[in-house]
Amino acid sequence: MASIKVHGSVISNAVMRACASLYEKELEFEFVPVDLKAGQHKTEAFLSLNPFGQVPAFEDGDLKLFESRAITQYIAHSYAEKGNQLISHEPKKMAIISVWMEVEAHQFYPAAQSLTWELAIKPLLGMETDGAVVEENEPKLGKVLDVYETRLAQSKYLAGDCFTLADLHHLPNVEYLMGTQSKKLFDARPHVSAWCADILARPAWSKVVAMKNSA
Amino acid sequence: MASIKVHGSVISNAVMRACASLYEKELEFEFVPVDLKAGQHKTEAFLSLNPFGQVPAFEDGDLKLFESRAITQYIAHSYAEKGNQLISHEPKKMAIISVWMEVEAHQFYPAAQSLTWELAIKPLLGMETDGAVVEENEPKLGKVLDVYETRLAQSKYLAGDCFTLADLHHLPNVEYLMGTQSKKLFDARPHVSAWCADILARPAWSKVVAMKNSA
Repeated sequence: MASIKVHGSVISNAVMRACASLYEKELEFEFVPVDLKAGQHKTEAFLSLNPFGQVPAFEDGDLKLFESRAITQYIAHSYAEKGNQLISHEPKKMAIISVWMEVEAHQFYPAAQSLTWELAIKPLLGMETDGAVVEENEPKLGKVLDVYETRLAQSKYLAGDCFTLADLHHLPNVEYLMGTQSKKLFDARPHVSAWCADILARPAWSKVVAMKNSA
Repeated sequence: MASIKVHGSVISNAVMRACASLYEKELEFEFVPVDLKAGQHKTEAFLSLNPFGQVPAFEDGDLKLFESRAITQYIAHSYAEKGNQLISHEPKKMAIISVWMEVEAHQFYPAAQSLTWELAIKPLLGMETDGAVVEENEPKLGKVLDVYETRLAQSKYLAGDCFTLADLHHLPNVEYLMGTQSKKLFDARPHVSAWCADILARPAWSKVVAMKNSA
């Protein structure tokens, strides 16, 4: 029995983010499906794992965590010697990784997640896309990607020459948006486009996509 | 000349967050005022420090950072031996701190910041409060604070028995909201209320407030 467990649904961005970090570190884990349609994430049993009632919840032995970006950081730091290095032990390098993790969370994610919800998830659930939300968020995401284009002209990855958690945290939204009209925002920026192709091609990410497709 | 510089305006939540961590670590720094009204944060000089054109920007010698929560983490990790300990070197304890930092960023902040903007900052700038936004966000913040109430009944601070960055990151919004009608949301929850009183009374935070009041 694996000591690491991820509770969630693979359509969730946040769950994919956590699983990507586990595959990068070549860690075995047990995936415990949570039936979101049946409201299983709002049951007392699940709320004892995450009081906010959101997926994923995570266990490693007696340690219980939630919030996907806290989970990825724990995995990257605690299993530093396994799989691919996703962080740095050098404080200044780690600070640059932190900057771009925060950029993902506070600049990229709000617009990207609104677009993912409207253009990818809602159609999956048979709901109607709200065109006004799309129209509001595409230019916002475009402005963020302008900064990324300049950044990625200077370094191969957001935090420097190596793939790190800062890149990994973007993968679920990038994956979803590549199947929508918002793909054009990435395609129009050559360095962003090359970065997307590179990170989407990582073997660890392919495992997450396979997991999602087989669900 | 201090090697640490914070570029910003003290009315900014994010600037206060960065300064709070510097005062907790008892570090000297130079505060470089950025005139937001004059659009100084959108000039080429400032954009070279933060390409997103937001305050604060931060320098420590040749290291340049932005995004307030990345700055606080850099300070807490790099100056671990100075002032008050704000993080943990034990991976499982650090993971719990990360969880509650992420909770601040993704659960507390969106609602708290909307209320801060509508009820505290807009009046300061002579703008009109949008009652509908307040009405939407007060119940959202209330739900988050329900989880905090349960958590703070179990431990004095969000991540355990000690004050950490997870608590510190809340201070600017808590400070602002205590001067608004949304204070009632904190007052109605005894453990949340005691936690607010405790963290607002920290000497380092008093220095941030004094800085803000003298601006």
